Amino acid sequence: MTEIENIEQLAKRRGFFYPSDEIYGGLSGFYTYGHLGTLMKIKLENLWRKFFLEEDNFFEIDPSLIMSEKVFEASGHLKSFVDPIVKCTKCGTYHRADQIVENFLNRTFEGETPKELTKLIKEHNIKCPKCKGPLEEVGILNMMFPLDIGSEKDMKGYLRPETAQGVYVNFLNQFNILRKKLPMGLAIIGRAFRNEISPRQLTTRMREFSQAELQIFFDSEKVNEHEKWNEVKNYKLIVLPFSECDKKSKIEMTCEELSKRIPKFYVYYMSKVQKFFLDTLKVPKDMFRFRELSDEEKAFYNKMHWDMELNLESLGGFKEIGGVHYRTDHDLSGHQKVSKQSQEIFFENKKLVPHVLELSFGVDRILFALLDLFYFKEKDKLILKLPSCISPITVAVFPLVNKDGLNEKAREVYDMLRKQVDVFFDDSGSIGRMYARSDEAGTPFAVTIDYDTMKDDTVTIRYRDTTKQERVNIKDLIKTICNF
Amino acid sequence: MTEIENIEQLAKRRGFFYPSDEIYGGLSGFYTYGHLGTLMKIKLENLWRKFFLEEDNFFEIDPSLIMSEKVFEASGHLKSFVDPIVKCTKCGTYHRADQIVENFLNRTFEGETPKELTKLIKEHNIKCPKCKGPLEEVGILNMMFPLDIGSEKDMKGYLRPETAQGVYVNFLNQFNILRKKLPMGLAIIGRAFRNEISPRQLTTRMREFSQAELQIFFDSEKVNEHEKWNEVKNYKLIVLPFSECDKKSKIEMTCEELSKRIPKFYVYYMSKVQKFFLDTLKVPKDMFRFRELSDEEKAFYNKMHWDMELNLESLGGFKEIGGVHYRTDHDLSGHQKVSKQSQEIFFENKKLVPHVLELSFGVDRILFALLDLFYFKEKDKLILKLPSCISPITVAVFPLVNKDGLNEKAREVYDMLRKQVDVFFDDSGSIGRMYARSDEAGTPFAVTIDYDTMKDDTVTIRYRDTTKQERVNIKDLIKTICNF
Repeated sequence: MTEIENIEQLAKRRGFFYPSDEIYGGLSGFYTYGHLGTLMKIKLENLWRKFFLEEDNFFEIDPSLIMSEKVFEASGHLKSFVDPIVKCTKCGTYHRADQIVENFLNRTFEGETPKELTKLIKEHNIKCPKCKGPLEEVGILNMMFPLDIGSEKDMKGYLRPETAQGVYVNFLNQFNILRKKLPMGLAIIGRAFRNEISPRQLTTRMREFSQAELQIFFDSEKVNEHEKWNEVKNYKLIVLPFSECDKKSKIEMTCEELSKRIPKFYVYYMSKVQKFFLDTLKVPKDMFRFRELSDEEKAFYNKMHWDMELNLESLGGFKEIGGVHYRTDHDLSGHQKVSKQSQEIFFENKKLVPHVLELSFGVDRILFALLDLFYFKEKDKLILKLPSCISPITVAVFPLVNKDGLNEKAREVYDMLRKQVDVFFDDSGSIGRMYARSDEAGTPFAVTIDYDTMKDDTVTIRYRDTTKQERVNIKDLIKTICNF
Repeated sequence: MTEIENIEQLAKRRGFFYPSDEIYGGLSGFYTYGHLGTLMKIKLENLWRKFFLEEDNFFEIDPSLIMSEKVFEASGHLKSFVDPIVKCTKCGTYHRADQIVENFLNRTFEGETPKELTKLIKEHNIKCPKCKGPLEEVGILNMMFPLDIGSEKDMKGYLRPETAQGVYVNFLNQFNILRKKLPMGLAIIGRAFRNEISPRQLTTRMREFSQAELQIFFDSEKVNEHEKWNEVKNYKLIVLPFSECDKKSKIEMTCEELSKRIPKFYVYYMSKVQKFFLDTLKVPKDMFRFRELSDEEKAFYNKMHWDMELNLESLGGFKEIGGVHYRTDHDLSGHQKVSKQSQEIFFENKKLVPHVLELSFGVDRILFALLDLFYFKEKDKLILKLPSCISPITVAVFPLVNKDGLNEKAREVYDMLRKQVDVFFDDSGSIGRMYARSDEAGTPFAVTIDYDTMKDDTVTIRYRDTTKQERVNIKDLIKTICNF
């Protein structure tokens, strides 16, 4: 099996995630999180919240997922949020034109114009990958899902293609209700929707997905400073500047060094992002980098755009997981123009439309990446060595056998533990089988109740990563787990 | 101002919730939760999770919001999830026919057939409420939002109109992955969508809303028992049986008494629901009841159906907030038939398709109800006396004045507190004004830093509900708050 198949099978077997509506053959581009995946996703979102919203004057909001057409007229999505698409004249299948060319010529064509792609297809005589038929001219398809609202079909809305617009249309209101100060952060964690032509790579390119996005509003005259700059200036960032991209895969430089060409406000938040992945999520350092995008690759609204990438074996290398985007006043000014409502604020004795720095992450992608990075094959067994803070289940509890009161005793231990941590009770097989299942689920601790437990109230605690076992008194269990 | 206007104003002024996309005039039927509303919603969902998923073998999952057409063919929603709709021949406005008749005749017509409604409209010569024009025949409108998926528009999906189907299509899979035991609970907390003809009453009838639903799968032969029956049999339920509905608004009876005509498994979960509202959310007892629905009112999939209602002044009386639904094997059997995949499980030596008891709640409705129930007008000021566990902000911190180092000291206290609880820092006005804002936001504690603080490290803590103030040492603040 390939690496991605291993992850697919593991995710399905343990119920992290699998295609939606499988009893109807699955729905392409849509996935369901089973119990383990849901627990892990909730933990991930809470860690994100705690880390990124710890800054003063940073808040979370929760707008509706369906938004007015005007919002996307103003943001530019109606016009510019399109994919190049090409139809096979023979079998009728639609393909993403840039990907067909990419697969054929083995380099990236994201952001290429339909005209240029049509030319490339003709030049290299590229055919339909499905039936080898000839391809039509390249067209475009808007990736948003439109909706008719109400009974008269005269109100048009869209499922949001990113959470960000939900922040922009609420900025002025929340600024005035909350502290009336800059910088101000507004975050949304929630679903977004894109009608991808070819959803692929499991949960990394879906039609419905979850984002955790933070929009930081600031005075553009202060883009070269940050209150806490001194705390990070010597911190080493792992980056791939565009100028280096033909030579290296990544280099290290301090925030101070990078700030010679990238504004300090931007660099400060790169350091925050890197710390979240390296320190909180324990991503190995050599699997992480920021990659500076070329002008052609940049999203249409960005002045600066570095992707945050992780090196994922299952996807054949570094893969975009999030990004740091300097969106300037593109969005607020767009809304000001279309809504005819001023988006200016009055702050520190002047009027201004704030600029926006966006930290954007795909929640599903992070989750997928963690499975990829922490999944190991040891002697035919799969072990998911997730850090405790993100493991769906913290402790598994087993009775050694299902008789002589051991099951009842195990349930007592289970009931005690689950008041404080996520616990799974398992009494459905041999100890070896139960350990294997719990290792695969990424559970860092397994507790076994045996005949000695009945005598002296001690249990065996087994550590997933070392398979080391030790005897612990039941009353010390929580302490042992929390101090690990 | 009417009560509902008071709530609307308060919710908007403090940013609990307000219409989505307001800078474009708002989007009818869609609301945005601002920071306070978002914090409150997250707390409410976490309390729900903790309370309802504490039972053994109960789990949460998170399927996609967009589901296949086949799902809703099987569930009956394609055919039966419709509203009666009537068009004015003069002004062209569509109305919900049952509501027009209801408003005219002053009694409920929910569930009435289009034919019967057309007859009533003719009989009583009911006109368009907007322009007094004559009305057409009553028709029906499916309330689901359809979506074309992919580029070929040949895949049809729907935004889910309830979270429940997401559990049913995943039941068999999760049953096999998890503990293979009944009863088993599967919960979803998340968005659902209904294209309401007339969204109304703020966040209580929206087109996009959040549900917290728990589907409990059990062996139908055991519907007259529950493992923990003895713990609840003498617990008094507040109910309005259908037989009493012309005489009383509610009566009390023990679980044991009610179990003479309603199965114990059902009654047990009524007691759970009541405890959540009375004990966890501190809803006053006389504001709560279960109301038994008539056969005409019942949802098409339910064998038994009691709504959980709260008495809300702003909505003129008892209002549905949730429900306990005995859906039998309606859904699993429907999916079995349409998908041709057996939904049978093997449990305790027999094959069976489990029955389902559903506990269903509108998250937005609970939140709205809490604002209604805990909102008081005292001497021209609005105070939101929310229980601490659900207050968006737990503590407000103010410097008495903005000079002599008081602001910096206040920020130290703020930084210390916000590691453990939700805190709001405010330095933008007089103490009186800041207290008033914090009372309106439902914040139970306000801490003021004054000149004495600079000398002896004590602060004033003020209690929202009593306006009582006391001096507390900074290091005892957390303890004081948590022990309150």
